[in-house]
Amino acid sequence: MRVKLTIEYDGTNYAGWQRQKNAVSVQEMLERAALACCGESLSITGAGRTDAGVHARAQVAHFDKSCAIPPEKICYALNMHLPADIRVNQSEPVSADFHARFCATGKAYRYTIHNGSHAPALNRFTAAHVRGRLDADAMRQAASAIVGTHDFAAFCASGCEVKSTVRTVYSLVVTEQPPLIHIDITGSGFLYHMVRIIAGTLIEIGLGKRAPDCMQQILAGRDRNAASATAAAKGLTLIAVYYTPIANTWGQNDNEG
Amino acid sequence: MRVKLTIEYDGTNYAGWQRQKNAVSVQEMLERAALACCGESLSITGAGRTDAGVHARAQVAHFDKSCAIPPEKICYALNMHLPADIRVNQSEPVSADFHARFCATGKAYRYTIHNGSHAPALNRFTAAHVRGRLDADAMRQAASAIVGTHDFAAFCASGCEVKSTVRTVYSLVVTEQPPLIHIDITGSGFLYHMVRIIAGTLIEIGLGKRAPDCMQQILAGRDRNAASATAAAKGLTLIAVYYTPIANTWGQNDNEG
Repeated sequence: MRVKLTIEYDGTNYAGWQRQKNAVSVQEMLERAALACCGESLSITGAGRTDAGVHARAQVAHFDKSCAIPPEKICYALNMHLPADIRVNQSEPVSADFHARFCATGKAYRYTIHNGSHAPALNRFTAAHVRGRLDADAMRQAASAIVGTHDFAAFCASGCEVKSTVRTVYSLVVTEQPPLIHIDITGSGFLYHMVRIIAGTLIEIGLGKRAPDCMQQILAGRDRNAASATAAAKGLTLIAVYYTPIANTWGQNDNEG
Repeated sequence: MRVKLTIEYDGTNYAGWQRQKNAVSVQEMLERAALACCGESLSITGAGRTDAGVHARAQVAHFDKSCAIPPEKICYALNMHLPADIRVNQSEPVSADFHARFCATGKAYRYTIHNGSHAPALNRFTAAHVRGRLDADAMRQAASAIVGTHDFAAFCASGCEVKSTVRTVYSLVVTEQPPLIHIDITGSGFLYHMVRIIAGTLIEIGLGKRAPDCMQQILAGRDRNAASATAAAKGLTLIAVYYTPIANTWGQNDNEG
């Protein structure tokens, strides 16, 4: 039976979502917990591969199990075998053709910046620290160029191999909650490091180092070197994965980091 | 020269604000940092003594220094000697009669509850977990009885020694941000454990274990045993300490935990 999981995690202590040699990943912790619960070695497939230090409020994954635990109850069983920084908030039966990654129609991410003279104590693992004063209006002005269907090659980590670098961004909202600034972005799918490179570029625009209208030129140039440095992983949280049709975006949802 | 400090901390790893034998406190870490910066053994006085596991967004403290570091710069110097879970966000010169505790005219606290079937991963150190569904409307209805000047003896930890248990609560607001519920309370001052006992009682009301109108009776009875258990420390954050006159509340601001 195929089961869909909705998973929250604090990525601080993990080498990212994906199983790796010589480092502990979220996927590995879940697979270990599934083995302990179900007595079978199971492969758990996530909707997206979050990087080391990136968090999730609602990552989605699926796996196939044959044990007797009812699918709605398996979250409780898994949580008994998981550390406190990973929680399965929901488990539910899905049809055999559900695939956490390939069926996803969109994702929402939040990038959080602590904008202040001193690094945050309370949000030290969940916000990137930017010391210089950010102009949120300039960031908003620049953000509008990102919304829509574009070739995001300039916002893709060099060396990432995908068929197409065209993606659709449905919304990009910059909100101020002093001393925090949140960048909320929703799209059909995201290229590797795309959200963090957009955040890094918006930070430089907010600092006045670049003009708000540079976004159009960066997009048009399709050159990774024209965009700013990738913003710190700890500021990024995967907020939601969508499975209902948002728009005609099939085939554009691979490869997020 | 007297200096006022505004301090943020994650209380998870400390035995509370106040210096203690055999346990590390926030005050001790600050006094150690002040010794390292100023070369003098200084006593740092806080506005309130937060308990073990309680956090602060803006605790206030004062100390007297004779070193040459300008008062506005001492926050940078202190932060160089502090761990990442304690940050001094501001330092400023104040007159010699300023006293962080005795001059405070009010304080604001936030109590955060994660209301869900599973414990939170991301907020596991900054929110109390309540599994049963909370009725925020019932909590709001009960909260209104707390606002005003009352004898809060029923909401004071047994054994606490104060001249008077009369305090003024200016506001108590319950807001929902699913899966979180925040209780924001502002007052002239708070008795030892007062906020956490109010939060514990509101939680039982939210769970339907007690009627919303029980607050009046609990207040009138002045018996600690009539109120509910003290809610978990980790849900509590000291948000602000006020020094401008809010109302005629002098002498009512001692002893918060």
